[in-house]
Amino acid sequence: MTNALEVIGVKRGGGELTDAQVDWVIDAYTRGAVADEQMSALLMAIVWRGLSPRELARWTAAMIDSGERLDLATIGRPTVDKHSTGGVGDKVSLPLVPLVAACGAAVPQLSGRGLGHTGGTLDKMEAIPGWRATLSTTAMRQQLQAVGAVICAASDTLAPADRKLYALRDVTGTVESIPLIASSIMSKKIAEGTGALVLDVKVGCGAFLPSIGEARELATTMVELGAAQGVRTAALLTGMDSPLGRTVGNALEVGEALEVLAGAGPADLVELTVALAREMLALVGLDSASDPVKALADGRAMDSWRAMVRAQGGDPDAKLPVTQEIVHIRAERGGVLSRLDARAVGVAAWLLGAGRARKEEPVSATAGITCLRKPGDRVRPGDPVIALHVDPALHAAEPRRLDAALDALHGGWEVADAAPAVAPLIRERIG
Amino acid sequence: MTNALEVIGVKRGGGELTDAQVDWVIDAYTRGAVADEQMSALLMAIVWRGLSPRELARWTAAMIDSGERLDLATIGRPTVDKHSTGGVGDKVSLPLVPLVAACGAAVPQLSGRGLGHTGGTLDKMEAIPGWRATLSTTAMRQQLQAVGAVICAASDTLAPADRKLYALRDVTGTVESIPLIASSIMSKKIAEGTGALVLDVKVGCGAFLPSIGEARELATTMVELGAAQGVRTAALLTGMDSPLGRTVGNALEVGEALEVLAGAGPADLVELTVALAREMLALVGLDSASDPVKALADGRAMDSWRAMVRAQGGDPDAKLPVTQEIVHIRAERGGVLSRLDARAVGVAAWLLGAGRARKEEPVSATAGITCLRKPGDRVRPGDPVIALHVDPALHAAEPRRLDAALDALHGGWEVADAAPAVAPLIRERIG
Repeated sequence: MTNALEVIGVKRGGGELTDAQVDWVIDAYTRGAVADEQMSALLMAIVWRGLSPRELARWTAAMIDSGERLDLATIGRPTVDKHSTGGVGDKVSLPLVPLVAACGAAVPQLSGRGLGHTGGTLDKMEAIPGWRATLSTTAMRQQLQAVGAVICAASDTLAPADRKLYALRDVTGTVESIPLIASSIMSKKIAEGTGALVLDVKVGCGAFLPSIGEARELATTMVELGAAQGVRTAALLTGMDSPLGRTVGNALEVGEALEVLAGAGPADLVELTVALAREMLALVGLDSASDPVKALADGRAMDSWRAMVRAQGGDPDAKLPVTQEIVHIRAERGGVLSRLDARAVGVAAWLLGAGRARKEEPVSATAGITCLRKPGDRVRPGDPVIALHVDPALHAAEPRRLDAALDALHGGWEVADAAPAVAPLIRERIG
Repeated sequence: MTNALEVIGVKRGGGELTDAQVDWVIDAYTRGAVADEQMSALLMAIVWRGLSPRELARWTAAMIDSGERLDLATIGRPTVDKHSTGGVGDKVSLPLVPLVAACGAAVPQLSGRGLGHTGGTLDKMEAIPGWRATLSTTAMRQQLQAVGAVICAASDTLAPADRKLYALRDVTGTVESIPLIASSIMSKKIAEGTGALVLDVKVGCGAFLPSIGEARELATTMVELGAAQGVRTAALLTGMDSPLGRTVGNALEVGEALEVLAGAGPADLVELTVALAREMLALVGLDSASDPVKALADGRAMDSWRAMVRAQGGDPDAKLPVTQEIVHIRAERGGVLSRLDARAVGVAAWLLGAGRARKEEPVSATAGITCLRKPGDRVRPGDPVIALHVDPALHAAEPRRLDAALDALHGGWEVADAAPAVAPLIRERIG
């Protein structure tokens, strides 16, 4: 019979946990038989010592087994999902989910809310009047069959161990660990029942793990975990030095997603949406049957979006909320925008009210940022470069939010004489 | 304004905490503003990264400042105390405290109870009929003035941060860290107000830190912490490969302490008691005034013991409790006892009821072990080597205790043809 001190002691000493020890500690923690203070000591020992591939596979499996694992085999279409490690202005799920559904697959995207400087897909969708994030498992299944596209909140019955561990890591400084991040993401995605999964692992200053080495290690780790659990998994490493597209903020990002679904939209956002769609379709053998570029151009992706929004109570024809209070930041000199720091823009949008610092906080639908110029764009003296969208109710209550957002952007962008060297958006493919 | 995540993050990254961060985290934890799960993550990060000498000095000072620091300057005699890191059969405090008092110093020994395989001084003293461990600060002060010798429980007002941290470390696998051990011991001893301190740091298989390298590091660390706080501190590294003296168990050890106070007793126990007394007297400048060997021989130490016991309600003439149920382990072959493992004997005595596994458990006064032979002693075939003293009430309730104790001793001793090489009891002096 094992116990918490024994498990902590093995990991503290740099040893490898047995399968029985991993199973026991995840189960006992989920049940409350291992205390938070014991688990946080173990988590810090894992940050220190890591987990071997065998330990990590078992740890992830135990997290999945802590709850229900959905079986979507009877949906009638191949299932495939996408997960992003989180970027600034990353609204890709909004056009991507209906696009891939329009191409013949079913996308069961169980998603989360934002925390910190990167937004959450559910927060963005909730800017659509009437749209509901919560679906019963039965309703989700029916919508997957009928529409092929679902974006909704994950049920409490999926990977409850992850829910508890995630909250604990958040308050104990044990977030930054590749095995802990990988097992958290993969346990949730595998429990939702998807047959295939494409990971968008961000690289650059706005990413959670800025360096390409760490991003590659995280991607490889997750691709292996997916394979071990029978989920075909691939990953793209993609740039997150400046925001994706031009908008950061909930309703603003829905508006930009609609541009993409209408066959237009910013080049980088379209490029990433199409590349991820191709990866997803390839994993389920539909890549030769459907061309996502055509499905965007001929309106099928938009039809799928409208059906998806309507199925969850949303009105696809409703006007999105906007604020009239816009503050512009202008260039003092002319030249080329050489840098627009994703993290600075993300933090500024968060401070304006688009994101939250604690998970109970509400978010503003209208607050956010529009990047009027992107790196490589020409700028004349006096041109507006960044537009801050101020939520009037939040501003009245806390006028210092705007000053804080302006401060966050200070030094976050630069105008130079020559165009910057631009790295390709899609850096590597893994899996 | 600092916060728990910031402090954990600095230490997790291998950085050095500022004085303000150390002060904040110890105070906030004592007040309950830093949660147990946050402190245990920080403690594991300290096990991993260590504390620099500056951080450790501040950490210890913050622990002292979490409560009261007694001022014993008005006692009228120089004060000096001793702390042992814990050994099997280590009843040295019992003869040592009255011996040093008989030589002119005052010894304010605030002590603890045992946990695990090493016994606690208070548990041993409580085998004396009528003796009370709890004294008010006023009563302790009066006894120090009148008798010069006090062994009593530490009050809750001394180093409350240590009390909380010690309990947390015990359940989170964060005990084995030299800075955490050193700060725990020194914060308690410094808060009790002693002017000087001698540390008995055990080395060998029965010690908490078996290797001489770790023991030396712990001793050096504690000597430096004492000096930084104005407490003259020295340390002896002493052997703990086999039990000290011949007895292990509460009333049994009181009996053996009385032999020493009567001018007899086992050679190793007398040697260590006298050596520690000389160190203590030297630290307070009384080494030339008094010879502890004489104070043992002429009955002054015994007089001081009797006064000390009486002052705390004990009857120095009362018969100590004994059990008649004794099980002998006998030698199968003749030769010389070459090994008697301190840890095996300690665990066996603990299993018989002399110690406790959890801090709420009571201990037996009579249960324990007598080592009838010590390493180097001649043994004939059939000679009893070890006597197990069985508490009849405990044995009736849980007869398996005796089997477990016999198991623990299995392989814990050896008879060979030749006498073993015996290392000196006192290995090194530090400070």
